[in-house]
Amino acid sequence: MERLESYVEGQWRAGQGAPHVLVNPATEEPLAETSTDGLDLAAAVAFARAEGGPALRALTFAERGELLRAMSRAAHAERDALIDVAIRNGGNTRGDAKFDVDGAIGTLAYYADLGAQLGDARLLTDGDGVQLGRSPRFFGQHILVPRPGVAVHINAFNFPAWGLAEKAACALLAGMPVITKPATSTALVALRLMKIFTERAPLPRGALSFVAGPPGDLLAHLGGEDVLAFTGSSATGAALRLSPGLVREGVRVNVEADSLNGAVLGPDAVPGSETYAMFLRDVARDITQKAGQKCTAIRRIFAPAAVVDAVRDDLVDRLRDARVGDPAQDGVTVGPLTTSDQLRGVRAGIERLAAGAAVALGGAGPFEAIGVPPGKGYFVPPTLLVASGPDGAPAAHEHEVFGPVATLFPYDGGAAHAVALLRRGRGSLVCSVYSDDRAFAAEVLLGVAPYHGRVLLGSEKIADQAPGPGTVLPQTIHGGPGRAGGGEELGGLRGLHFYSQRTAVQGSRPILEAILGAKGEPRPAPAKP
Amino acid sequence: MERLESYVEGQWRAGQGAPHVLVNPATEEPLAETSTDGLDLAAAVAFARAEGGPALRALTFAERGELLRAMSRAAHAERDALIDVAIRNGGNTRGDAKFDVDGAIGTLAYYADLGAQLGDARLLTDGDGVQLGRSPRFFGQHILVPRPGVAVHINAFNFPAWGLAEKAACALLAGMPVITKPATSTALVALRLMKIFTERAPLPRGALSFVAGPPGDLLAHLGGEDVLAFTGSSATGAALRLSPGLVREGVRVNVEADSLNGAVLGPDAVPGSETYAMFLRDVARDITQKAGQKCTAIRRIFAPAAVVDAVRDDLVDRLRDARVGDPAQDGVTVGPLTTSDQLRGVRAGIERLAAGAAVALGGAGPFEAIGVPPGKGYFVPPTLLVASGPDGAPAAHEHEVFGPVATLFPYDGGAAHAVALLRRGRGSLVCSVYSDDRAFAAEVLLGVAPYHGRVLLGSEKIADQAPGPGTVLPQTIHGGPGRAGGGEELGGLRGLHFYSQRTAVQGSRPILEAILGAKGEPRPAPAKP
Repeated sequence: MERLESYVEGQWRAGQGAPHVLVNPATEEPLAETSTDGLDLAAAVAFARAEGGPALRALTFAERGELLRAMSRAAHAERDALIDVAIRNGGNTRGDAKFDVDGAIGTLAYYADLGAQLGDARLLTDGDGVQLGRSPRFFGQHILVPRPGVAVHINAFNFPAWGLAEKAACALLAGMPVITKPATSTALVALRLMKIFTERAPLPRGALSFVAGPPGDLLAHLGGEDVLAFTGSSATGAALRLSPGLVREGVRVNVEADSLNGAVLGPDAVPGSETYAMFLRDVARDITQKAGQKCTAIRRIFAPAAVVDAVRDDLVDRLRDARVGDPAQDGVTVGPLTTSDQLRGVRAGIERLAAGAAVALGGAGPFEAIGVPPGKGYFVPPTLLVASGPDGAPAAHEHEVFGPVATLFPYDGGAAHAVALLRRGRGSLVCSVYSDDRAFAAEVLLGVAPYHGRVLLGSEKIADQAPGPGTVLPQTIHGGPGRAGGGEELGGLRGLHFYSQRTAVQGSRPILEAILGAKGEPRPAPAKP
Repeated sequence: MERLESYVEGQWRAGQGAPHVLVNPATEEPLAETSTDGLDLAAAVAFARAEGGPALRALTFAERGELLRAMSRAAHAERDALIDVAIRNGGNTRGDAKFDVDGAIGTLAYYADLGAQLGDARLLTDGDGVQLGRSPRFFGQHILVPRPGVAVHINAFNFPAWGLAEKAACALLAGMPVITKPATSTALVALRLMKIFTERAPLPRGALSFVAGPPGDLLAHLGGEDVLAFTGSSATGAALRLSPGLVREGVRVNVEADSLNGAVLGPDAVPGSETYAMFLRDVARDITQKAGQKCTAIRRIFAPAAVVDAVRDDLVDRLRDARVGDPAQDGVTVGPLTTSDQLRGVRAGIERLAAGAAVALGGAGPFEAIGVPPGKGYFVPPTLLVASGPDGAPAAHEHEVFGPVATLFPYDGGAAHAVALLRRGRGSLVCSVYSDDRAFAAEVLLGVAPYHGRVLLGSEKIADQAPGPGTVLPQTIHGGPGRAGGGEELGGLRGLHFYSQRTAVQGSRPILEAILGAKGEPRPAPAKP
């Protein structure tokens, strides 16, 4: 059986001791094993700081962008191999796997373009300079400089390729070396990607390291120059924020966590309209894609009470055709959950949601999946619950069920009621509003914006091209307040801020301009999707 | 004796139970007492959220700016009364008191101007919009919207007026109601300012509340919509960050904490030069002003070894003339520390610094102050230590001695050595570099920028108008990484970000533009000092 290695101190190294076993979640067949015991993670951190950091900081943005371009191209060249691994180790359908792998390729390419646009600079100016004194001579300018430590990335199991790539793209372009740690359960995909990078797009020594499994004592070696970006559960996110060592050392922490993303159907978007069709498509996609294992997936659906039965029936019609089973089999459209823990959690979660809701489709019961021996695999069928009323299924506002599961609520059709229901999620990554009524859309947007990192206003004019709320675009920020962790990633250049120190420089204007070069933050041209 | 009241739920209310006594730190004479026991702080939080927040968010930026203008004018009209209180309760000289009070007046006026420039808008757009889809129709725009909760401000004892005003200015302009809590020891100044606001510049009900003493259970009532900004010690800052309740609820926290600000004399700035004079003036001012009780004060002085004796002698010459005593007495130029705890801490700190350093002036010993009975008052004389070498006095890089105390180090005159010594502070609010050699200034700046929130490049051309590193200007950010707490305040519009949620809005371009108005963040005109 394959034994995963870590890439630390510029070398592939195997851990010692009892391994963790990675399985195919459709068949429970063991695929590989890994251990990080015995790796010298203090040395890995020191190497990244001492070798990777200076090497990256010596490069211009354009040169760092070229590294990202090479990574994007290398992943693209090995796309089919990556997809095959994602199908086996991630339980992904081919479409799910493409979503993850193409997300990685596209985000790297986007930040490669940004690097090219930033050109020969090595630091960013932030905003315009300002006169500070009586005369224009005493002048101030804010700059963004790379933090001189290492960026540790702890990624979630659901996007082993995209998660690794999007975090690494921002950090590397900002000039910080990365130690990336995939979730152990899907580390095989991340490992393949990492192998592709080391073989086909070699970075400066120490710029990108890889810990293939549990983090051991990695975090104990971080200091005030370092940053930690985490994607995963609220509970783990809170535990990291409450880590005395990280706080004492002043380690900057970013958290992306649980999110009860809502979708609101406007009263004008009646069944049969294009906007209604967009809404149905987005909801059904988010329930089935990646078996619902997206942090941005729609969990709560709000439809005017008058059409809630029609919405339920239309969703059930769409979801009933899902073919759930081993994604290696032809025709399967929904794969398994990723781990047995997830299976237990999602089944228990469905039971919680069902208090005050009716199961319209699916459920937590026994289930026969396509192409696997009976009882094997971590399968849950697409499950739609319908709350008994606007105040039914209270758990749906509190508890993220990370699988192909969503809850439909009736609301009174007024924007104020939709806003009140959306806010019950206490901070989410994204919400979507489907309406061509600008007054309705505006009222919902302004009511919920403080509780969300992103709001998608779905409407007829973009129904044919918007990828839905579940897709994270590098041009716009990814993160959310409150329960969603309070973090912020991506968003073009904004994604570099976490990896940078913002510093105000005060002094004589000619001296500042001589040292810092042209004023004004270089702005990226309108970005491609 | 005056009993301080708190201003909560739109009313002045006294606490119950055993009071804390506020004294004149020069004479130890009791001045006032206060208690916050028995105040219903849950109701105070709820009132601010329910009344103050909606009222502020209904105003345009220009209207919020007008509130700040009225506050600034009211404080200016009562400037003399505020100065008198600061002399008695803060141990401030008249100059110290003006520095605090004028800082408050000026910062309020600066943000009033910003509000006027932002005009009729109620939300900010953040950066340019971007095309997201194949066609220009699918569009993204980031916005900044007021967080819908309350901003709790915990201020330090050293700037009871400025600290209250600068935090409140940013929060109120951003559209968040404030509950401000001064340090108990100097709460009399903050109370006077608050009385002036309620009497001469009334704000919407619930927009600004005031807790005159210990915070009781105030923080237990905060949730994910609220924010907490703290200025004070690293230890308290870390304890707040590690508060399980705040983390569980997702309360956003900003910390300004200990800072071992360094000043570097460039080898070109020889004794007799204008830049050398600027350096001496800044160092001497930071040791004596506010009796050294400024978070931005220079604590570590780095001079080329060849001139370190000259620097020592010149500083001693300047500092020897200081007249330390009761600032109510004519001719006194340096007041006492603010509390007996501070006195104990500073005396112990001087002993720590003196390991590996010689005391060139002052010290921790007994001391006779002007105009006070023997043994009374919390006085420490201006104290200069000279490290035995570049690696002497290691405590000066680790331990903030919050009084009229600084340590002079020799360095080899090279930028790399200066950078290495500055970095030993592990993150500071500000550092200053005095040199007309652009190559030297550039090397130090780029070497230390990641470790500082602000760098002042002192040079001949601005020697006559730069206020020195110890003065916080609203145009540039105030905060620092690592030991300094990792926070960020002020910096023009940047100061509003902490009180705002950044949200990406995706949708049809015409709909976004109709809802959000013009694109592009309104930019303030060059700011006045």
